[in-house]
Amino acid sequence: MKNEAITPRDEDFAKWYTDVVRAAKLADYTSVKGCIAIEPNGYAIWEKIQSIMDAKFKELGHVNVQMPFLIPESLFNQEKELIEGFAPELLWATEAGERKLEERCAIRSTSETLFCDYYKKHITSYKDLPKLYNQWCNVFRYEKETRPFLRSREFLWQEGHTVHATAEEAEWETKRMMDVYKWFNHEILAIPSITGKKTEKEKFAGAEYTLTNEDLMYNGVCLQDGTSHYFGQKFSKAYDVKFTNKDNKDEYAYYTTWGKTTRAIAAIIMVHADDYGLVLPPRIAPKQVVIIPIGKDNEKVDELCNKYQEELTKTGIDCYVDNSEKSPGFKFAEAEVNGIPVRIEVGARDLEKNIITVARRDTREKMEVEVSTDIVTYTKELLETIQKDMYDRAVERRDKLTFEAHNLEDMEKILNTQPGFIHAMWCGDEACETRIKEIKGCKSRCIVEDGEKIDDKCVCCGKEAKYHVIWGIQY
Amino acid sequence: MKNEAITPRDEDFAKWYTDVVRAAKLADYTSVKGCIAIEPNGYAIWEKIQSIMDAKFKELGHVNVQMPFLIPESLFNQEKELIEGFAPELLWATEAGERKLEERCAIRSTSETLFCDYYKKHITSYKDLPKLYNQWCNVFRYEKETRPFLRSREFLWQEGHTVHATAEEAEWETKRMMDVYKWFNHEILAIPSITGKKTEKEKFAGAEYTLTNEDLMYNGVCLQDGTSHYFGQKFSKAYDVKFTNKDNKDEYAYYTTWGKTTRAIAAIIMVHADDYGLVLPPRIAPKQVVIIPIGKDNEKVDELCNKYQEELTKTGIDCYVDNSEKSPGFKFAEAEVNGIPVRIEVGARDLEKNIITVARRDTREKMEVEVSTDIVTYTKELLETIQKDMYDRAVERRDKLTFEAHNLEDMEKILNTQPGFIHAMWCGDEACETRIKEIKGCKSRCIVEDGEKIDDKCVCCGKEAKYHVIWGIQY
Repeated sequence: MKNEAITPRDEDFAKWYTDVVRAAKLADYTSVKGCIAIEPNGYAIWEKIQSIMDAKFKELGHVNVQMPFLIPESLFNQEKELIEGFAPELLWATEAGERKLEERCAIRSTSETLFCDYYKKHITSYKDLPKLYNQWCNVFRYEKETRPFLRSREFLWQEGHTVHATAEEAEWETKRMMDVYKWFNHEILAIPSITGKKTEKEKFAGAEYTLTNEDLMYNGVCLQDGTSHYFGQKFSKAYDVKFTNKDNKDEYAYYTTWGKTTRAIAAIIMVHADDYGLVLPPRIAPKQVVIIPIGKDNEKVDELCNKYQEELTKTGIDCYVDNSEKSPGFKFAEAEVNGIPVRIEVGARDLEKNIITVARRDTREKMEVEVSTDIVTYTKELLETIQKDMYDRAVERRDKLTFEAHNLEDMEKILNTQPGFIHAMWCGDEACETRIKEIKGCKSRCIVEDGEKIDDKCVCCGKEAKYHVIWGIQY
Repeated sequence: MKNEAITPRDEDFAKWYTDVVRAAKLADYTSVKGCIAIEPNGYAIWEKIQSIMDAKFKELGHVNVQMPFLIPESLFNQEKELIEGFAPELLWATEAGERKLEERCAIRSTSETLFCDYYKKHITSYKDLPKLYNQWCNVFRYEKETRPFLRSREFLWQEGHTVHATAEEAEWETKRMMDVYKWFNHEILAIPSITGKKTEKEKFAGAEYTLTNEDLMYNGVCLQDGTSHYFGQKFSKAYDVKFTNKDNKDEYAYYTTWGKTTRAIAAIIMVHADDYGLVLPPRIAPKQVVIIPIGKDNEKVDELCNKYQEELTKTGIDCYVDNSEKSPGFKFAEAEVNGIPVRIEVGARDLEKNIITVARRDTREKMEVEVSTDIVTYTKELLETIQKDMYDRAVERRDKLTFEAHNLEDMEKILNTQPGFIHAMWCGDEACETRIKEIKGCKSRCIVEDGEKIDDKCVCCGKEAKYHVIWGIQY
């Protein structure tokens, strides 16, 4: 049955999105302009994202730290390019108690400044390198238009900051962490993101280059969801991060940063959710299975529910029995809107026929299952099937919304009918990027590395093409 | 051998403390006044604290959320008592980009305001209650004098905020969470804290009453390390948090909050560390065992080290082989200053005699152990012994520094020779508390619940005594 609280996706995508956020109780607006309260259902997803990513980081040798969230203005001013990029979005603390601060401090919008200031003090020799630090924290950017998870003034993220003795090592790190983000989106979130290099115009302020992970939403709009930056020696020169190399000579360190945010939750929604609410890929679902008893105080029903719960939990499946006072119908609806991948219904009448009912959230299929079935194997396989099917459907959708443009007319036609990932060749000239942006704000998403040549000439100016680029409208 | 970087504890306790923080690489000062960088060794302890406490909270039914870190001034002003308590310590954000904010916002120093504002919107009926929310985050208090972990302008903590349908339930929650903090200190940190109620003067601004967890440092100074507050309906009246009760009548909700901070790391240091550096209780040590090979490229040595590591890891012991390029002596020193509970030395010459050497960090004892010994059982038992011994020694120290005072002269004498936990009776009059504070700033730590009467009259004024109170000098 249709969820009354949710506007149909094809009717109004933006409204549908915020309806899902509210109906699934992921987050709510607050009295603080542009800032959200992440509610238990939303925060549990972030906790699962954290736990999987953090384990991967540690496996690769990274360690966590915590730098201050304030940046004194004078320190911030040392890196010019960074300031120019971030200045309009910075929030400033200027008073404490009744006093004016001697120097105003920016609330961190990113922490390159603080990490470099730390590394400057703590790195002397190549033996101290590499430093592979990461931190989980909140950051603030004074955005004009905000939407829950997608673009919020305060958001949560992880920011990796690593320093290396050679450019080669640092570039390898930049690439490796982009691979981690891609792996995470494909394998865990069931989102077939694409990765590549940002153009000069779109790269992170102050970086030599930026690698990016780009998702395609259901409506064909693109979402940047994880970036990895190679800074070379730019920041270490600005902040004087030097070390003595193997030849006993002073050298500036090579620096990388990479980050992924609570925006990933927006991506999950806009790729997978439907008119009935959230749909969570099993590997990121805080609760993978809900077991719902039907028929009150039925010993046989309760016994089987508890047995299932025990057996499933033992094999590492996150599941629970919904023993609340609500009606079964209400429980079904709640499990559905919350996106729990598998629902097991244990009913008194069904049991007389020796069956239970299992419902998949992604397809909303209901299956009758013999009570004699090995529930652990069955559920495990079903969860894997759902994960795979969700990924496959996302690939199908992405491919359906992937286009090729050979000239500006192509580009315009695509963007005016159904946007998506648009492959087109580019000469490398910023003027062409600016021209293309005039069409509905379409931007280069990334340069396809080792991308095949699909044309000889630039989609815009017709001059010789240098890069195979993916373009699109972005959030 | 003495650690050159550490001032002896008995020579200068304050200097010793900061020396240990730096030598064990737990945290460092930054260019941001009063704010520290928590380094990998320090943050790993915080992560372990988080993981153990968070698992306990969840077991008790709490869920995590994330509220904004900014509080608009008008919202903050709704609760007068809270403002008066916190106003001098508040940091204010007033500008964004080039603009002045329409309304200045306080950086959260605690989040009662935001939680109440959220609950107001989300609670309508007794069926919505209780709400058992917690959040892990950073907070800021503009302190004048700061010291790493002990008192830092920015610190990390968890803050639980729960709302209930009855006073009884809320009071039960207040007590239960204090029990959790006590359990955590005794069982995990090996710190024999005492708990009780704060006096009116010392309670949290705006609370009906505050329960507190108080540790005694090695030098006899007290440390508040975890508090749990019962607010009754005070905050819900100020913020209009109402619900329809079972009798279908409007009622203000009953509210509790409780928190524990990175200050716990200061307590670990000041209770357990010594002149050689940090000493970590095994249950909170991120690395419980380090295995150090002695003799380069010795196949037999390396094989045994790897075998130990594999076997210990398999049983859930956090351990690693130190395969770095450093000399064995350097590795020993590093393990020692970092407080790793057990060090296993595998040497080529020792192996010829079929022995290995095991060193306890807490007592610095070295044991020769036959290679034929079952290393898993041996290490497990040793870790448990160390945990227990550290606790017992902390109890012994606490008891040695626990005194009874029957009059002001007693009090003065104790505070002037060797401070500690001072038991004394009190009439309940704030004037007496103020008088006692004149002696070296001594404050009431807590009222002992069900405390036996040790005198008939107040230690200060000589009038009839009402409460058995523990007093002391505090950080």
